Amino acid sequence: MPISDDSRALLEQPIFASLATIGPDGHPQVTVVWLHVEGDKVVFNTAAGRAKHRNMEADPRVTVLLLDPDNGYRYAELRGTVAMTEEGGDQGIDDLSMKYLGKPYPFRREGETRVQIEMDVNSEHWMG
Amino acid sequence: MPISDDSRALLEQPIFASLATIGPDGHPQVTVVWLHVEGDKVVFNTAAGRAKHRNMEADPRVTVLLLDPDNGYRYAELRGTVAMTEEGGDQGIDDLSMKYLGKPYPFRREGETRVQIEMDVNSEHWMG
Repeated sequence: MPISDDSRALLEQPIFASLATIGPDGHPQVTVVWLHVEGDKVVFNTAAGRAKHRNMEADPRVTVLLLDPDNGYRYAELRGTVAMTEEGGDQGIDDLSMKYLGKPYPFRREGETRVQIEMDVNSEHWMG
Repeated sequence: MPISDDSRALLEQPIFASLATIGPDGHPQVTVVWLHVEGDKVVFNTAAGRAKHRNMEADPRVTVLLLDPDNGYRYAELRGTVAMTEEGGDQGIDDLSMKYLGKPYPFRREGETRVQIEMDVNSEHWMG
């Protein structure tokens, strides 16, 4: 579904978002991600084999929490489903790094495969 | 298990933490919570009947993300299990409000029942 203008305004900023996935035992897992918006997709990036990558391969349902950096009592919870691809994964992390650090991604590890993630948003829940 | 000193140092600050629960359809849900630490329990509070309360009644496994307010690239993910009780729920939200707002909780709704939540931490995962 379309992403609201309010969510888009947060996604366009270099905010630290919380990403929740479901672990293999059903326990929720939460990490911090860089993200951006492209059209009606929320995009982020990870390295192949990380826990969140394995979780999303097993269950593509995720939730992203966006805190308004100007108001800690205002936030959006976006629920949706992800599709992942290694194609464009390297470019994707560099694009995100340009947004967050102003330079290409400096933290690549030897032999690391980057994975680009596109999230379709199914619902938005706003607080504040 | 015991809570590490590093996590304790974050929990004692008035930070906005992300709380992930599992929704009825298995989709992760994430909200922002006030929290505190008492002994080896992470404590927070909600109103009876809210989605996260219903989720935790059905599945007590939760995950809390604590961002270091001084370093966005340092954070702790605490996974654990909650126990909930209405006993002390009113006092609990006032205690948290004193920590975060410096006054008793001003946002109570008519007829609202407050629920105190105690989380046993099973694992800590640190980044940064």
